[in-house]
Amino acid sequence: MIITHEIRLSRIVRGTWKNTILVAFTCSMAYFAYWHFTQYHFEMPGIIPSILGTALAFFIGFNNNQSYDRWWEARKIWGVLVNSSRTWARLVIHLPSANEKINGQNLLLTKEYAVKRHIAFLYSLKDNLRGEKSDHYQKYLIKADQELIKGEGNIHNAILGLQNRELKSWKKDGLIDGFEFLELNAELTKFCDEMGKSERIKNTVFPTTYNYYTKMFIWLFNIAFTLAVAPMVGWRAILFGTIIGYVFHTIHFIGQAIINPFDPIPTGIPLDQITRTIEINLLEMIKEEHIPDPVSPINDEYIM
Amino acid sequence: MIITHEIRLSRIVRGTWKNTILVAFTCSMAYFAYWHFTQYHFEMPGIIPSILGTALAFFIGFNNNQSYDRWWEARKIWGVLVNSSRTWARLVIHLPSANEKINGQNLLLTKEYAVKRHIAFLYSLKDNLRGEKSDHYQKYLIKADQELIKGEGNIHNAILGLQNRELKSWKKDGLIDGFEFLELNAELTKFCDEMGKSERIKNTVFPTTYNYYTKMFIWLFNIAFTLAVAPMVGWRAILFGTIIGYVFHTIHFIGQAIINPFDPIPTGIPLDQITRTIEINLLEMIKEEHIPDPVSPINDEYIM
Amino acid sequence: MIITHEIRLSRIVRGTWKNTILVAFTCSMAYFAYWHFTQYHFEMPGIIPSILGTALAFFIGFNNNQSYDRWWEARKIWGVLVNSSRTWARLVIHLPSANEKINGQNLLLTKEYAVKRHIAFLYSLKDNLRGEKSDHYQKYLIKADQELIKGEGNIHNAILGLQNRELKSWKKDGLIDGFEFLELNAELTKFCDEMGKSERIKNTVFPTTYNYYTKMFIWLFNIAFTLAVAPMVGWRAILFGTIIGYVFHTIHFIGQAIINPFDPIPTGIPLDQITRTIEINLLEMIKEEHIPDPVSPINDEYIM
Amino acid sequence: MIITHEIRLSRIVRGTWKNTILVAFTCSMAYFAYWHFTQYHFEMPGIIPSILGTALAFFIGFNNNQSYDRWWEARKIWGVLVNSSRTWARLVIHLPSANEKINGQNLLLTKEYAVKRHIAFLYSLKDNLRGEKSDHYQKYLIKADQELIKGEGNIHNAILGLQNRELKSWKKDGLIDGFEFLELNAELTKFCDEMGKSERIKNTVFPTTYNYYTKMFIWLFNIAFTLAVAPMVGWRAILFGTIIGYVFHTIHFIGQAIINPFDPIPTGIPLDQITRTIEINLLEMIKEEHIPDPVSPINDEYIM
Amino acid sequence: MIITHEIRLSRIVRGTWKNTILVAFTCSMAYFAYWHFTQYHFEMPGIIPSILGTALAFFIGFNNNQSYDRWWEARKIWGVLVNSSRTWARLVIHLPSANEKINGQNLLLTKEYAVKRHIAFLYSLKDNLRGEKSDHYQKYLIKADQELIKGEGNIHNAILGLQNRELKSWKKDGLIDGFEFLELNAELTKFCDEMGKSERIKNTVFPTTYNYYTKMFIWLFNIAFTLAVAPMVGWRAILFGTIIGYVFHTIHFIGQAIINPFDPIPTGIPLDQITRTIEINLLEMIKEEHIPDPVSPINDEYIM
Repeated sequence: MIITHEIRLSRIVRGTWKNTILVAFTCSMAYFAYWHFTQYHFEMPGIIPSILGTALAFFIGFNNNQSYDRWWEARKIWGVLVNSSRTWARLVIHLPSANEKINGQNLLLTKEYAVKRHIAFLYSLKDNLRGEKSDHYQKYLIKADQELIKGEGNIHNAILGLQNRELKSWKKDGLIDGFEFLELNAELTKFCDEMGKSERIKNTVFPTTYNYYTKMFIWLFNIAFTLAVAPMVGWRAILFGTIIGYVFHTIHFIGQAIINPFDPIPTGIPLDQITRTIEINLLEMIKEEHIPDPVSPINDEYIM
Repeated sequence: MIITHEIRLSRIVRGTWKNTILVAFTCSMAYFAYWHFTQYHFEMPGIIPSILGTALAFFIGFNNNQSYDRWWEARKIWGVLVNSSRTWARLVIHLPSANEKINGQNLLLTKEYAVKRHIAFLYSLKDNLRGEKSDHYQKYLIKADQELIKGEGNIHNAILGLQNRELKSWKKDGLIDGFEFLELNAELTKFCDEMGKSERIKNTVFPTTYNYYTKMFIWLFNIAFTLAVAPMVGWRAILFGTIIGYVFHTIHFIGQAIINPFDPIPTGIPLDQITRTIEINLLEMIKEEHIPDPVSPINDEYIM
Repeated sequence: MIITHEIRLSRIVRGTWKNTILVAFTCSMAYFAYWHFTQYHFEMPGIIPSILGTALAFFIGFNNNQSYDRWWEARKIWGVLVNSSRTWARLVIHLPSANEKINGQNLLLTKEYAVKRHIAFLYSLKDNLRGEKSDHYQKYLIKADQELIKGEGNIHNAILGLQNRELKSWKKDGLIDGFEFLELNAELTKFCDEMGKSERIKNTVFPTTYNYYTKMFIWLFNIAFTLAVAPMVGWRAILFGTIIGYVFHTIHFIGQAIINPFDPIPTGIPLDQITRTIEINLLEMIKEEHIPDPVSPINDEYIM
Repeated sequence: MIITHEIRLSRIVRGTWKNTILVAFTCSMAYFAYWHFTQYHFEMPGIIPSILGTALAFFIGFNNNQSYDRWWEARKIWGVLVNSSRTWARLVIHLPSANEKINGQNLLLTKEYAVKRHIAFLYSLKDNLRGEKSDHYQKYLIKADQELIKGEGNIHNAILGLQNRELKSWKKDGLIDGFEFLELNAELTKFCDEMGKSERIKNTVFPTTYNYYTKMFIWLFNIAFTLAVAPMVGWRAILFGTIIGYVFHTIHFIGQAIINPFDPIPTGIPLDQITRTIEINLLEMIKEEHIPDPVSPINDEYIM
Repeated sequence: MIITHEIRLSRIVRGTWKNTILVAFTCSMAYFAYWHFTQYHFEMPGIIPSILGTALAFFIGFNNNQSYDRWWEARKIWGVLVNSSRTWARLVIHLPSANEKINGQNLLLTKEYAVKRHIAFLYSLKDNLRGEKSDHYQKYLIKADQELIKGEGNIHNAILGLQNRELKSWKKDGLIDGFEFLELNAELTKFCDEMGKSERIKNTVFPTTYNYYTKMFIWLFNIAFTLAVAPMVGWRAILFGTIIGYVFHTIHFIGQAIINPFDPIPTGIPLDQITRTIEINLLEMIKEEHIPDPVSPINDEYIM
C-alpha cells in the first residue's frame, strides 16, 4: 500500500520510461509516414481518433473499476480476518471453563496455544497468497503439530483442521458446551471462507482479453491521433501524441497495478502489516511478554 | 479461463475473420453507394456517426458490465463451493464421536464416505452445468446409492438428499448432537443454495434484445461512418471503416465470450480445475492414498 | 424470457411501427418548419442536438440499468425460492422421526403433504404476482385447509401460516426436536422474505418522471437534430432523423420491457416455467407417480 | 409514490415555473451582454460549453444515482419490515403453548396483543420518520404500556423494549422454549436494525456540496452556451438557452425529489400505504373483525 | 456532516483561493507562451483538450464514486453500531434473571454497568478513529476495569474482552442460559466486526496514484485548453482557462473532502453526534437521571 501522498518522480520514470519511449517511437513512425506519404493523399479525419478514444475510455474505465473492486474486496477479506481473529481470541480466552482434568495453568496454556495456532494459520495463509516460501508460521506451532501437517499440500487448511479437532476435544471434555461450540465453530468456518475468497482472487486471472485489447487500441488510437493533428501542428504531432499516449497508458497502468492485490508489490494489500497487527493484538490479549514491533513503511513510501 | 497474457494471433484471426470480412464488405458497399450515388446529392454529416457511437458505447458498455458480473458471480459461487466443501470435510472428520455400534474403522469409513459422496455431488453438478453426460461421479458412490438415485431427473439434488438422510441417522445414533447437526446441516443448505445459483446463471438467457440491437447499431454506425469520412479520405474510407468496425465488434465479442460462464469454452469458469482442486483437498484430508493430479492447462493457453 | 437469439422482424415491426410513424411525422414537421421558415432566419447549431444527446444518454442509460437491476433481482428472488423449496422438501423428508402416534404410512403422508402444501404456496404466490386469478393452487390442498384460508386477502401468506402451525405440532408431538425446528422454521422465514421481496418489486412503480422526461427529451432532440442536419442533407434530414429517433426510442423501449419483470409478458421472468420446475423437483423427491411435463416455449421464441 | 404514468402539465408548470423564469432571465442577460459588448471583442468558443457540459453530466448523473440508491434502499428497508412483521405475527400466533397459568382465551389475548403492540411500533416509527406528531400508535397500546413509555425520547425503541420484556416473560413462564425464543428474538433484532437504517437515511444529509455546485455549474454552462450560439442564431439564443437550461435543471430536480425518501411528499416512499398494508395483514392474521381500508391514492396521481 | 444547504462564500473562498491563484498563474503562463512563441508556429488543435477532458472525466468520476462509497460505508457502519447498541441494551435489561446470589438492586447494577461499559467502548472507539486522545470513556468504567485495560494498545478491543468475561460469568452463574448467551454474544461479535470495518476505512489509504495523476492531468488539460482557445479569444483565454480549471479542481476537491470520513473535519461522519445519540438512548433505557444534551451544530453549518 502506497502511503506517501507525493509519488517520487524517480518511481514514475522508472516505471514508465520503457513504455514512453515505445510510444514516442510509434508517434515518430506515424509522423514519418505522414510526412513522406499520407499528406500527399489524404488527411486523417478527427472523428477517427475521437471514436477510438470513446472505445478506449470504456475499456480503460472498465479495467480500472474491476481492478479497484478486486483490490478493495481483497482488503475487505483481510479486514474480516482481523475482526474474526480478535473474536476468536476473545472467545477462546473467556469461554472454556476449567474441569477436573484441565484447569489452572494447564487450561491457560491450552487457550494460549489455540490463539497461537491461529497466528500460525495467518502466516501460512499470507505466505501462500504472496507466493513466498517461509517457515515463519512454524514458530507458533508445537513439534507434534508440525509433524502432523508436514507434507500437506495446503498447510493453512490443515491448521484449520487442527483447530477443529481441538474444539471437538474441548466439547467432549466439557470445557465448552454446545452453545459455546456453535460460536467458536462459526469463527473457524469464517476463517475457511475468507481463506477461500483470498485464493479465489489470487487464482482467478482477470480476463486477459481486456488488457490485451486495451493496449492494441491505445496503439491504434495513438497512430490515428498523430496523423490527425500533424497537418495542423507539423512535427509537434510527435510531442503531443507522446503526451496523450503517456496519459492513456498511465491510466491503464494504474489499474493494472492493483489488479492482483496479493502480489508482493508496493501497490498491493499490505499483508505483512495486517498479519503483524493481528499478531500483536492477539499476543497482547494472551498477555504474552515479547511482542514484535509493527511493520515499518519502506522509504516512508509504501508498506508491505 | 484464459491464463496466457499473450493471446495468439491465430486464435484472434480464427475467431474474427468471418466477421471482419462481413464488416469489410459492408464498408465497401457503403463506399460503392457513396461513389456512384450519394456524393452527387449530399454529404453525410459527422454528427450522425458520432451520435450512433454514443448509443453504441452505452449498449456495448452495458453488455460488457453485465457479462462480467455474470462471470464473476459464477466464479464466486464456485469459490463458496470450494470453501464449504472444505468446511464440510473438516466437520465430518472431527465432529462425529464413536458410539457402541459405530466406532473404530467403521466410524472412519462412514466419515470417509460422507466426504466422497460430496465429491460425487460436485462432479454431478459440474457435468450438469457443462451440459456433459459423464459417469465420473459414480466413482465416488457405492452401488446401493447408485441404485437409489438412478433415474432421478436431478442427480446432484438427489445426492444432497442422501447426505441429509445420513446426517439424520448420525443424529439418531448419537454420533452427533443437536449443535453439531446444526453446523453440518448448514453446509448442506449452502450446497443447495450455490447449486441453485449456478443453475440460475446457466438457465437465464441474457435479454436477447441487447445483443441483437448492438449488432444492428454497429452495422448502421459502420455505414454512416464510411459515408461520413469518404469525402475526406476517398477509398480509404473502406479501410478505416473496417478498422473501426473491427474495434467495436471486438469489444462486443469480448463481453459475449464470458456471458455464459459455465459453457465448456476456454473463456468460461474452469470448472474442471476447481472440481479437481476440491477433490484433491478433500482426499488429502481423509488421507486417501491415490490422489489425482491437478488439471493441466491446454497449450499453456487456457484451463478448463 | 425470450429464448430465441434471432428476434422476428414481425415482432419488431409490430412493437414499434406506431412509434416509428410518430417519429417520422415529427421529423417531417421539423423539416417543413425548416423549409418554409427557419432556413431564412438562422441555422440550428450542432451543439444543441449534441448536448441534448448527452442528457438523453444519461437518462436512457440510467433507466436501462435500473430496469435490468429490477429484472435480475426478480430472477434472483425466484432462484432463492427454487433452492429453499428443495431444502424444505429435503428437510421435511429426512428430519421428522416416527413416534408412537404418527409413524409408517401416516408419517409419510404427513411429510408428503407438507411438501405439497408448499407447492400450493408457490402457485398462489405466482398467480398473485402475475395478477392472474386461478385455483390451480387448490389442487395441492386438502379440503380442510381450503376452508381455512378461504376469504383471506393474502392466500400465500395464509398457507405459510398453515405450515407454521404444522411445524409447531410436529415439535409438540416430538416428530422433530428444537434443533430441527430451527432449520425448518428458517426456511419458512425465507419463503416469507422472498414473497415480500417479490411483492416489493411488483408494487413499486419505477419513478414515473424518468420515463416521462426521457420521451420528452427524445422528442426535443429529434426536432433539433432534424433542423441541424437539414442545411447539409436537405429532405434526407427526415430519413436520418427517423433512423436516429428509432435507435433512441428502441434503446429506451428495451429497458421498459423488463422494468416490471413479473408482468405476464414474453420479456418477463418465466414464473410458469420456474414454478413447474420446482413442482417437478419436489414431486420427484416425494416419489409421486404422476409428474407434470415441463413448461414448453411458445413458438420457440419465449417461455412464460 | 407517483402512480400515474401521465404527469399533469399543471404539476410540471407549478414545480418549475420559478426556476424557468430565472433561467430565461439569465440567458437574456447573457444575450444582452453579447449584443452590447462581447460581440465586438471575441466569440465564445464552443469547446467551453461542451467541457462544462461534461462536468455537469458527471455531477447530475452522480446525484441521480445516489438519490435513487437512497430511495430504493428506503423502499427495501420497509419491504423487510413488511416481511418480518408477517413472520413475527405468524410465529407469535403459532409458537407459544398453553401452560397452567396462561391458556385458552387468556393465551389468545396475550398473542393478539403482541401483534397489536407491533402495529403500534410501526405507526410510531412511521410518524417519526415523516416528522409528524400523531397519537395513532396509542390505539394499539393498553393504558399500562402507554404510561410506561410516556416521556420517552424514542417511542418506537421503547415499544421494542416492551416486546422484549414480554418475550422474556413468555420464556420464563414456559410458553416458549429456548429455540422458539431464538426465532422470536431474531425478529425483534431485525425490527431494531431496520428502524435504525430508516433513521440513518432520514438523518444523513446528502453532501450539500454536490447540490450546490451542480446549480452553480448549470448557471455557468447556461451563460457560456448562450454566448456561444448567439453569433449563429441571434436573439434565439435566449430561447435555446432557456430550453437547454430547463432540461438540465429538470434532470437535476428529478433526482432531488427522491433524495429524502421519508419526507411527506408525493415522490417519497408511501409509508402510509405500507403501514396500513401491514396493519391489515396482521389484523387478518389474528382474525380481528374491524379491519381498516387500504390507503387510497390522491387524485389518482400519487399515494402517500 | 454539513447541514446547511447554503454554503458560505467565505468557506468556499477560504478553501479554494490558493489553488485558484495557482490555476490562474498556470493559465497566464500558457497564454504568455502562446503570445510570445507558439502563435507564430502552430495552433493547438481542440481535439487535445477534448481528449484530455475525457481522461479527466474518468479519473474524477472514479475518485468521486469511490470517495462517496467510503463515506457512505462509514456511515452505514456507525448506523449498525447504533442499532446493535440499542439491541445490546435491550437484551441486557430484559434477559438476565435473578438467582440467589445476584438479584434485586445488585442485578440492576450489574445490568446497568454492562450498558455503561458499552458506552465506554463507543467513546474509546470514536476517539481512536478521530485520532484524538481523551479520557472521556473512563467516565463509564469503574476503577477496577480502568486498571485492567491500562496500558493496552487497543483500548476498545480490551473493553470488548471485559464484556465477554462478564457474559461468561453471567452464564456460569445462571443469570442467562445458553440461548440467551447466543443472542448476547452475537452482539459482541457484531461490535467487533464494525469496529474492525471502521479501522479498515481509517487505515487504508485510497490509492495515491489516482489523486496524484488527477492533479497532473488537470494541469496538462488547463495548459492545452488555454493554448487552444487563445487564438479565438485572446487574453480572455486566461479568464476562461481559470474558470474551467476552477470547475475541475472543485469537483475533484469535493470528492477528496469525504475520502477519509473519520477525520475530524466538517465534511466527515458526525461521530460526536452519533456517539452522543447512542449515549442518550442507552442512558434513557437504564433510567439514568442525568442525561447529556445532544451535540449542537457549529454555526448552524456543520455537525461533528
